[in-house]
Amino acid sequence: MTSPPSASTPDTTLLVLDAEPPPRLGRLTGRARIEHADPSTLAERLPHADVLLVWDFASHAVREAWPGGGPRPRWVHTASAGVDHLMCPELAASDTVVTNARGVFDQPIAEYVAALVLAMAKDLPRTWELQRAREWRHRESQRVSGTRACIVGSGPIGRTIARTLKALEITTALVGRTPRTGIHGPADLDRLMARADWVIAAAPLTDQTYGMFDARRFGMMQPSARFINVGRGQLVVEDALAEALAKRWIAGAALDVFEHEPLTPDSALWQLPGLIVSPHMSGDTIGWRDELGRQFVELYERWEAGRSLVNVVDKKLGYVPGR
Amino acid sequence: MTSPPSASTPDTTLLVLDAEPPPRLGRLTGRARIEHADPSTLAERLPHADVLLVWDFASHAVREAWPGGGPRPRWVHTASAGVDHLMCPELAASDTVVTNARGVFDQPIAEYVAALVLAMAKDLPRTWELQRAREWRHRESQRVSGTRACIVGSGPIGRTIARTLKALEITTALVGRTPRTGIHGPADLDRLMARADWVIAAAPLTDQTYGMFDARRFGMMQPSARFINVGRGQLVVEDALAEALAKRWIAGAALDVFEHEPLTPDSALWQLPGLIVSPHMSGDTIGWRDELGRQFVELYERWEAGRSLVNVVDKKLGYVPGR
Repeated sequence: MTSPPSASTPDTTLLVLDAEPPPRLGRLTGRARIEHADPSTLAERLPHADVLLVWDFASHAVREAWPGGGPRPRWVHTASAGVDHLMCPELAASDTVVTNARGVFDQPIAEYVAALVLAMAKDLPRTWELQRAREWRHRESQRVSGTRACIVGSGPIGRTIARTLKALEITTALVGRTPRTGIHGPADLDRLMARADWVIAAAPLTDQTYGMFDARRFGMMQPSARFINVGRGQLVVEDALAEALAKRWIAGAALDVFEHEPLTPDSALWQLPGLIVSPHMSGDTIGWRDELGRQFVELYERWEAGRSLVNVVDKKLGYVPGR
Repeated sequence: MTSPPSASTPDTTLLVLDAEPPPRLGRLTGRARIEHADPSTLAERLPHADVLLVWDFASHAVREAWPGGGPRPRWVHTASAGVDHLMCPELAASDTVVTNARGVFDQPIAEYVAALVLAMAKDLPRTWELQRAREWRHRESQRVSGTRACIVGSGPIGRTIARTLKALEITTALVGRTPRTGIHGPADLDRLMARADWVIAAAPLTDQTYGMFDARRFGMMQPSARFINVGRGQLVVEDALAEALAKRWIAGAALDVFEHEPLTPDSALWQLPGLIVSPHMSGDTIGWRDELGRQFVELYERWEAGRSLVNVVDKKLGYVPGR
């Protein structure tokens, strides 16, 4: 929680960086001047905005436009859990408050991870291949109960993943930046990862986590281990993962996020043996845009009333700290 | 629990109906005469057996051979949860005790059902199709938390499925033959099924359950509902399911069991829109044969010691009654 630099009035300019109009903003009609920008107009509009809503969270336009001259919005909200796409040194050093969509994605992403874990344990991808080939081939599959997961990222998403996997009787270990009750620090990571059946990346992208899943770490994992990334593509050195799969250092992987998104048709990742590719959709369940819109309106109403904001990002850390 | 007709001696003949030798029986060497039969020799061997272990649980040989003349084994154990493949009026009317593999498949099948539920909610089959086509296409998926499941079959498998789905925050209703605490009777079935997002068949095959999922019942389900069968193929009228999928009375289905197994390459089921086909493997996790062998040896040791057997099937009902 933090005190807002100032409350809004009907004269407040709310600038929305969007590709398509966000839902639920109608509630703010007459209470703010709502303007829209796209990546090509953002730099020009930014000095005239009091509040910036980053709805197009796939865009790097904020990071690019922010360092320019002139006044800057006092508050930036991003309709995403990660803030890596907008942060730059000038924004980090400024007085501007940054908030994120903490909470909206926790349960959907946790369910998605459970879906991938179970699909891999039960060999569902092979089942689909065999179905397509009209081939009846019985196989033995794996029990997930009693297996071990190491979840990297101890924010609300990582903790919800841990709770969901525990409900499936999987033994879970959470690793975060700061050790605290129930959460291991970075010093324990290699040891926990080396004995995990499931290594799950759900960390924010920061200087500390960039490229953390590299050849050394894939080489440490068990040959039977599976790796899942629902965090950010840049947590993973993709070439190292490709090598780990090709050389069977690990048994399989699933990526929902990539260094470059969307993945182009010529990417080698589409056909890596043992890799499941999905298009950055783990958190996006039916109604998610509505929920993101509603969450922003709630924050806006706090701001308007001069109350303190929640979901405030620590701009140095790159995420919302604390439980 | 029931008292065994008599305890065994080293002269006891244990006849094993198998396609491949069961593991763990080595423990009984010198304690019983172990003989093997296949479907072609079973009728001839049956009169000389004290105990019959049905290890080849895909075979109907027992049902066919049992009505013949001569003495019959006093105890028959099947390494399966269902007993439909061996029951016949003559066996039902006899004094022979029938036991099954109750317990071995509960957790594996429950995990398999959870895998299918989550895979369908998260649209994983489409994800695999798109991956194969190297196509990046973001979709919204479904949350499973807050959805409703109706589980038909209130034995240990059905109850473990319910517990597992509840852990995923799915609201569950169990339907069994006899209403009791926490379990609905058949009178509630249609009402519960009509409002379920997931209808899961995990019942034994009996006169009451044969063909119970027919056109009338598929027609009652919600258009958004998915149907999963991990019980026995004959619970389902397959043509009615095909019609329900083709006409979009329901949104999807997954069958692990079929009226005729193995499914032949020319079966229309392989390519029904929205149907996931798997080769009767939901309960078969790594180590399952060992576990089945160990379970039989434990039962055999009870029998040998003149103690009462467990997992005793009510031959009229066609399953092990009670909690």
